Amino acid sequence: MKILVTGFDPFGGEKINPAIESVKRLPEVIGGAQIVKLEIPTVVHQSLAVIREAIRKEDPDMILSIGQAGGRPDITVERVGINIDDCRIADNAGNQPVDEPIYPEGPDAYFVTLPIKAMVKAMQEAGIPASVSNSAGTFVCNHVTYGVRYLIETEFPGKRSGFIHIPYLPSQAATKKGMPSMELDTIVKGLTVAIEAMIEHQEDVKITGGTIC
Amino acid sequence: MKILVTGFDPFGGEKINPAIESVKRLPEVIGGAQIVKLEIPTVVHQSLAVIREAIRKEDPDMILSIGQAGGRPDITVERVGINIDDCRIADNAGNQPVDEPIYPEGPDAYFVTLPIKAMVKAMQEAGIPASVSNSAGTFVCNHVTYGVRYLIETEFPGKRSGFIHIPYLPSQAATKKGMPSMELDTIVKGLTVAIEAMIEHQEDVKITGGTIC
Amino acid sequence: MKILVTGFDPFGGEKINPAIESVKRLPEVIGGAQIVKLEIPTVVHQSLAVIREAIRKEDPDMILSIGQAGGRPDITVERVGINIDDCRIADNAGNQPVDEPIYPEGPDAYFVTLPIKAMVKAMQEAGIPASVSNSAGTFVCNHVTYGVRYLIETEFPGKRSGFIHIPYLPSQAATKKGMPSMELDTIVKGLTVAIEAMIEHQEDVKITGGTIC
Amino acid sequence: MKILVTGFDPFGGEKINPAIESVKRLPEVIGGAQIVKLEIPTVVHQSLAVIREAIRKEDPDMILSIGQAGGRPDITVERVGINIDDCRIADNAGNQPVDEPIYPEGPDAYFVTLPIKAMVKAMQEAGIPASVSNSAGTFVCNHVTYGVRYLIETEFPGKRSGFIHIPYLPSQAATKKGMPSMELDTIVKGLTVAIEAMIEHQEDVKITGGTIC
Repeated sequence: MKILVTGFDPFGGEKINPAIESVKRLPEVIGGAQIVKLEIPTVVHQSLAVIREAIRKEDPDMILSIGQAGGRPDITVERVGINIDDCRIADNAGNQPVDEPIYPEGPDAYFVTLPIKAMVKAMQEAGIPASVSNSAGTFVCNHVTYGVRYLIETEFPGKRSGFIHIPYLPSQAATKKGMPSMELDTIVKGLTVAIEAMIEHQEDVKITGGTIC
Repeated sequence: MKILVTGFDPFGGEKINPAIESVKRLPEVIGGAQIVKLEIPTVVHQSLAVIREAIRKEDPDMILSIGQAGGRPDITVERVGINIDDCRIADNAGNQPVDEPIYPEGPDAYFVTLPIKAMVKAMQEAGIPASVSNSAGTFVCNHVTYGVRYLIETEFPGKRSGFIHIPYLPSQAATKKGMPSMELDTIVKGLTVAIEAMIEHQEDVKITGGTIC
Repeated sequence: MKILVTGFDPFGGEKINPAIESVKRLPEVIGGAQIVKLEIPTVVHQSLAVIREAIRKEDPDMILSIGQAGGRPDITVERVGINIDDCRIADNAGNQPVDEPIYPEGPDAYFVTLPIKAMVKAMQEAGIPASVSNSAGTFVCNHVTYGVRYLIETEFPGKRSGFIHIPYLPSQAATKKGMPSMELDTIVKGLTVAIEAMIEHQEDVKITGGTIC
Repeated sequence: MKILVTGFDPFGGEKINPAIESVKRLPEVIGGAQIVKLEIPTVVHQSLAVIREAIRKEDPDMILSIGQAGGRPDITVERVGINIDDCRIADNAGNQPVDEPIYPEGPDAYFVTLPIKAMVKAMQEAGIPASVSNSAGTFVCNHVTYGVRYLIETEFPGKRSGFIHIPYLPSQAATKKGMPSMELDTIVKGLTVAIEAMIEHQEDVKITGGTIC
């Protein structure tokens, strides 16, 4: 089995992005699966073009993308990507689309096709704060959550994909006010057990991870 | 023009639900449109059955549903409903589905078809805290956000629908710790100007309401 | 009985301060006590000079000061004022002291001498969100909380004093992101029942209002 | 130079307390000073009795106490302890005082006598999220913040003391909802540089660490 794991480069004035840093530090093999690591630009569409090229070249079974969610206290596994770009800040190429569909011909949203509850459960059992998230935002992270699944539906049938958001590093939070953080080693450990759960669970487990609103 | 506005009954141990209370206090006519008010049960599927009956009987042009979002500080206009029930608490009939689709044959999600940015802008300009929300949760509020649009797509073509979440009332927050609240009069005023914006804007305005994640 | 109630003028870029607005709207008589209203400048020491002059002229039995606490969701009754000015922003006269004592010869702190638990209880029973706060910050609100008690200890023995923080108004929160608010009428009602409790309770009631940290 | 560093045992249903765990892992010598480590019970007065005994036996120059602040995202250096016990939960011996003075004959509060701004600055420069806190709560942490200074004033003149609150560990946060955390290694590193700053700075640095309210 082969898993493509992508991480964004720094954006929004940050000098480092824990997403690509944690991806770089993942083992080469997890649960018997080969891990292919890919840095992607924090740019709408260009991020997807880079992933598409890697899927063509590597033919992975699953694609997992990692992004930074500054302000969240735990590792969050996204449930859904929505067909909209609505950017409060510009991406790394200066694009700032407002309420534009990612793929005009695509459906309104796609659920991720990874076992999100099993991934959360595995991280919690390993002592790592984790939860399901019902919104990946409307910036490049959501763009990739939705877009990779769109690529799969239109060009690479049968593959599974999903997205994990990670907190700031302590060094990033140290320059801000009241921001939670997580050590890179903890993030890497969390992603590793989450990937193990992805491999182990063809079907997701039934545990509530819902919110009232 | 006719607008059906629905409000949930109390749930989760509360004796009052500001949703139905605010709906009851709306004017009979807003912006020249007739307002038809409907109380719905906080119960999966039954809530939709009641709305479907009312759509059949009243043939409204738009359907706006109102729900309580305890903990949110402002009035939030939802952007999307997703095809999942994942309930952390039981609904008023004791149902607690976990990760079950609302309509197995439906798409993963539907965007609401109301001018959400114009509605938020109208409320803010009236001095009422408001914002766009990218998740209606996974309980009965999301159930109705998704479900009404599903009914429209399958049975009532051409109608538009959407969902607004409102905060706790002060009297509810007074018995909790650190919870924000909003007066019923303020909520009613907010819903009124939001409905005026629904009537006025066939197309939504382009203003960023996005979040990074 | 006579009660001096003070409210700050606008600061920090705001055009309105709910503190002085709510004080202006208080009844002239509450629980048989005469209410004397006083606007004070959001300026270190000058605020206290204005209060001192009013105490001399009016000879009130109690002094209650009201200040805006942007970001807090409920009405908070302060427990203690500390002998320090540590200002993150400049006051209305451009002063920005950092870690300077308010009165170099004063003790490190003074507890307020009003029945804070009874005041919180009265507001909660009236359906108004309220709680005890253990920090009035280190800006002009804390300055007055500490300073008025210092004036009492050194010049006006036997009088009682305290401080209440109130949230943003909805119109203020409408221009910010994710801020809780409270209607002016609700604030006025809360202050009124809190003042009734001040008059009624010579001794405070024993109810836990504590926090673990 | 000799520094007594105390850490609480587990309380409030937790099986572990990062306070004593981090204290145990501190180096034996920091910045040339000998570190004396002491576990103290999460019990009012008994905690202080154990510290008093250790001060008598060890005659340290400074006393630094460490406590867990579940829910805070960063390491917080306390500015002040207040002369009150107001416990929302019982301590480890079942005591739950409400609004009782710690020492009836003591003043309302004591500022800590460590260079709190220099300690925060040192941690931030080491890439560790840290800030000044203006309230140590009203439970056993505040009890010790106030009480140790009272012991110094009444029995051990010339010594300096203070208090640092630390976040939950990831393993604790993993079993809770939406709680921030910090790795034990990061906490130990933070405490170490904070202690270095305590040794280096006889006088505190002038940097604003204040809050508006």
